[in-house]
Amino acid sequence: MLAVAIEEAWAGLSEGGIPIGAALFDGDGKLLGRGHNRRVQENDPSIHGETDAFRKAGRQRSYRNTIMVTTLAPCWYCSGLVRQFGIGTVVVGESVNFDGGVEWLRESGVTVIDLNSEECVEMLAAYIAANPEAWNEDIGE
Amino acid sequence: MLAVAIEEAWAGLSEGGIPIGAALFDGDGKLLGRGHNRRVQENDPSIHGETDAFRKAGRQRSYRNTIMVTTLAPCWYCSGLVRQFGIGTVVVGESVNFDGGVEWLRESGVTVIDLNSEECVEMLAAYIAANPEAWNEDIGE
Repeated sequence: MLAVAIEEAWAGLSEGGIPIGAALFDGDGKLLGRGHNRRVQENDPSIHGETDAFRKAGRQRSYRNTIMVTTLAPCWYCSGLVRQFGIGTVVVGESVNFDGGVEWLRESGVTVIDLNSEECVEMLAAYIAANPEAWNEDIGE
Repeated sequence: MLAVAIEEAWAGLSEGGIPIGAALFDGDGKLLGRGHNRRVQENDPSIHGETDAFRKAGRQRSYRNTIMVTTLAPCWYCSGLVRQFGIGTVVVGESVNFDGGVEWLRESGVTVIDLNSEECVEMLAAYIAANPEAWNEDIGE
C-alpha cells in the first residue's frame, strides 16, 4: 500500500511540488482515493497528501475500517483529519523528516504503523535540502 | 467579522448544504478568504468552512497575525489546520452545537474568542434537527 503513496510523492516531485503522497484504502485493501501535496503546483496550501487522498475518496459513511497510508507522518492538520473522521489506521512511510501528530494519534486510539522507509526519508530530505522555503511554508514555519 | 462568516453559512444553507461559514482576515482586519462547508453541494468531505476560507486565501508566508472567524467551533480537522499553520486567533460564533478543539487550541497558545451568537446556534441547530445524517457524517459520527 505504501507503494501507491510513494508513486504519488514521485508524481508530485515530477510536477515541481513537495514530494509527499498518500492513499486511503478500505478495510479489505481496496483503494478509495490517492493524492499528493499540491501547494506549489496549484498554489493551494490546503492540499496535503492526506487531505487530497481523503477528498478523492469522496464521501464515506464510516472511516473506522479505513487505512490512511502516507509517505510522511501527518502534520496537525492531517492528524486532525484522521481523528475527526475516525480513520482507524495510519501507515506512515517515515517520521524522520517530520514526526507530526503520530503520538497524539496513538493516544487517541488510532493504530499508527511506521514503516521507516529509506526511500521516503531520502526523497523528502533531498527536497527539503534543495527547497527549504517551500518546506517551511508547508509546515507553517 | 463574524457577519462575513454568517453570510457564508447562509449561502451554504441556500445551496442545500450544511450551514457553517468561515473567513480568514489579516491582522489589520483585511479579508483574505471566505468560504463555507460544501460536503453536500459538491460531495466533497474535505471542504469545511475553515478549510475553504484557508484555501481561498491562497498561500501566505505567515499566519501568526491572521484571524480565523467561523460560525462554529472548529472540529479536530480544522483545529489541526489552525495549529499547524500557526493561525494566532480564532473567533468562534458558537460552541453550543459542537465544541470541537477549542480547549486544545487554547492550551496550544491560540487565542480563542467565543461570541456565543444566538443566530449561529439557531441556524445550525435547526439544520441538525432536520438533517441529522448529513451532520453526523460531517463530524465523522
